[in-house]
Amino acid sequence: MADEFNLIKTYFEPLSTGLADDELGIGDDGAVINTPENHQLVVVMDTLVSGVHFLEQTAPCDIAWKALAVNLSDLAAMGAKPVFFTLGLTLPESDDDWLKSFSSGLAEIANSYNIALVGGDTTKGPLAVTVTAHGWVKSGEAVLRSGARIGDVICVTNSIGSGALGLKLLQGSFAEAFKGEFTVQEKNQLMQALNRPEPQVLVGHLLHQYATSAIDISDGLVADLTHIVDSSNQRFGEISAQVKAEIYLERVPVLSSVKRYLEQTGDWSAVLAGGDDYQLCFTMNKAEFDLIRSNTLRFGVEITEIGRIVERDPSQGLFNKVSLTLNGKPYALNAQGYSHF
Amino acid sequence: MADEFNLIKTYFEPLSTGLADDELGIGDDGAVINTPENHQLVVVMDTLVSGVHFLEQTAPCDIAWKALAVNLSDLAAMGAKPVFFTLGLTLPESDDDWLKSFSSGLAEIANSYNIALVGGDTTKGPLAVTVTAHGWVKSGEAVLRSGARIGDVICVTNSIGSGALGLKLLQGSFAEAFKGEFTVQEKNQLMQALNRPEPQVLVGHLLHQYATSAIDISDGLVADLTHIVDSSNQRFGEISAQVKAEIYLERVPVLSSVKRYLEQTGDWSAVLAGGDDYQLCFTMNKAEFDLIRSNTLRFGVEITEIGRIVERDPSQGLFNKVSLTLNGKPYALNAQGYSHF
Repeated sequence: MADEFNLIKTYFEPLSTGLADDELGIGDDGAVINTPENHQLVVVMDTLVSGVHFLEQTAPCDIAWKALAVNLSDLAAMGAKPVFFTLGLTLPESDDDWLKSFSSGLAEIANSYNIALVGGDTTKGPLAVTVTAHGWVKSGEAVLRSGARIGDVICVTNSIGSGALGLKLLQGSFAEAFKGEFTVQEKNQLMQALNRPEPQVLVGHLLHQYATSAIDISDGLVADLTHIVDSSNQRFGEISAQVKAEIYLERVPVLSSVKRYLEQTGDWSAVLAGGDDYQLCFTMNKAEFDLIRSNTLRFGVEITEIGRIVERDPSQGLFNKVSLTLNGKPYALNAQGYSHF
Repeated sequence: MADEFNLIKTYFEPLSTGLADDELGIGDDGAVINTPENHQLVVVMDTLVSGVHFLEQTAPCDIAWKALAVNLSDLAAMGAKPVFFTLGLTLPESDDDWLKSFSSGLAEIANSYNIALVGGDTTKGPLAVTVTAHGWVKSGEAVLRSGARIGDVICVTNSIGSGALGLKLLQGSFAEAFKGEFTVQEKNQLMQALNRPEPQVLVGHLLHQYATSAIDISDGLVADLTHIVDSSNQRFGEISAQVKAEIYLERVPVLSSVKRYLEQTGDWSAVLAGGDDYQLCFTMNKAEFDLIRSNTLRFGVEITEIGRIVERDPSQGLFNKVSLTLNGKPYALNAQGYSHF
C-alpha cells in the first residue's frame, strides 16, 4: 500500500500509548510486552468482513468500534482484563477521510477500555478488519464455557436482540405482522446496539468471583448457550449427569421497542438467534444472584436470570440441549450455526 | 460460515497441541496461555490477501505455509522463540479439498517450528489469511531495529532475491535481456523460495548474543535496511552521529540462477527491492563475525557480510540512508515502499 509508513504514523501510532519504558509498540518487526507475575495471557481474535459482518455503507468509525468491541467482549467472557491488541486492516485503497474516521472510532473505544494498539499490518485488498486482543487473568481464574452445573441459574447482562433488530431496521426486513412504528429514540437505540455494542468488560472482570461458566452472545442466545451445554457436558461428562439449559422466554430482557415487536409478530429470531448482542451469558449459584446483581447495578449493568441448568433426560435425544418455554408452554426454534473458535 | 464448528474440529483442532494442562487452546471464547517468569511477550501480525500477496492459483498448503512463515520470520527478527499463534481465515466458501490442503501445509510448518495454534476466527469473504504469532524473549533481550552503530558490519542469512525471481518466473516478467534458461532444479529452488520460505528461527533465537539490530527482509533489502537506519538514527540521534548503510552489491549472496540473471540483465530489482526474502538482515561487531558464522553453519545457515554501518554526511541530504556500490562504483535504485508495522 502506497505510503503505508505515513498512514501508520498518522492514524495508528497515536493509539500505541500507555506502554512501560521497556515495552515496545508500533515500529519494529513485533511488539514487546511485559508479563505480570502469577497471571495467564488470554488471546482472542475476530475478523469483520465488509458485506458479511457489516453493511458496506457502515461508517468507518463504527466499523472500527465494532471490530475492537467484539474482541473485548470475548476477553470479558473469559474474565480477562484487556491490555493490548494488534490490528490487521485490509483496505481497497488508501483513503484519508476513511482512515481518519476509522482511527477516530478505534481511538474512542481503545481509550474507553484502556487498551493499547501495539502493532499489526495494513494491506491492500477487499475491506476487512481483524483484531487480536490480549488480556490478563490471574492464573487459574479464567472463566470457561465448561463449568455449568445442575441447579445453576442462567443469567444475561442488559438486553438481548437489540443489535439484530437494528439490522432488520436497516434492511427493512421486519416480520410482516409488525405495524408499529419506532420512535426516533428507539431507532437510535437499535442502531447504537448494532454499530456500537458496549462490551461487558467490567462485569467480565468480576465473573471469576461467581460465574461457573460464561460466553459472550455473538452467535445468538440459543447457539451460545448450546456451546456452554456442550462444553460442560464434555468436561464433566464422565463423572456426572449430563446437563441442558432451560430458558423462560418471558424473562429474557429486551428493550421496550423489541418487546413491542415480539408482541406484534411472535418473531423471536432476532432475540434467540440474531446474535450480535455482545452481552454476557453466564451461569452461577442462585444463592449469590442478588448480591452480584446489586454489584453490577453499581456500574449500570442489569443482570437477569433467564433460566436454569437442569439434568438432561438422555431419552430425549442428542439435540435436547437448550429447551425454551414461553409462559410455561414449549417453544421451538432451529438454532443457527456456529461462528467463532 | 456453514458448519464452521465441524470445520474447526476437523482441520484446526489437531494443530492445538503441546499446551500445558492448565492452558487452553481452541474451543472457548479465547485461549489461555501461561507466561514464563523473566520473559517478555513478542507479538507479530501479518495478513496475506489473495491476488496481492500470493497468486490466485497458489496451492492452499503453500498459502498456509507462507502465512505462518512470514510471521515466524518477524519473531525471528526480534530474537523471540515462537510459542503459539492465532489464525484468521477468510474464505469465499467452505471447500473440503481446499481446507485439507491448507491445514496440511499449516500443520507442516507449525510442527517444524513447534508452534501451537490456539484459536482464531473463520469467516466468509474474499480469500485472506491473517496470523498473529507470539513468542517469548528473555526480558530486555529483544533485538530491535534501532541499535545499529557506526562500524558495525551488515549481514544477511542465506541468499537474497530468490523469492522475487520466483515470482518473475511465475509471471513471465524477466527483464528482456535474460536469455538463459533455468534448469528444472533451479526453477524448483526459486518456487520453493517464493512459496515455502524458511523463517530463520534458529538464527533469530541467537541474535541477542551478538546483533546490535535486526529486521527480516520482507519489503526488500534496501527498504528494510532503511528501516534499520531510520530507527537507529531516531534512537541515538540526540547523542551521536547519524548513521547510514553502505552495501557492496558484489557481496550480496544469491543463488547461482539469480547470479546468472543479474549478469545477463543487470536487473537488481528482485534482489534489492523484491522483498519476500524472509532472510534476516542484522548488524553486529565485526570482531565477532567469524565465531558467529561458524555457529550458524552448524545448523546449515550461511551468514554473509554485505556492508557496513558508517557515519552519514548530513550535507548529502535526508535521503542518503542506504548507499550501494557495485565493484566500487556507485549504483542507484529507487527504494520501494513500506509494508508492515
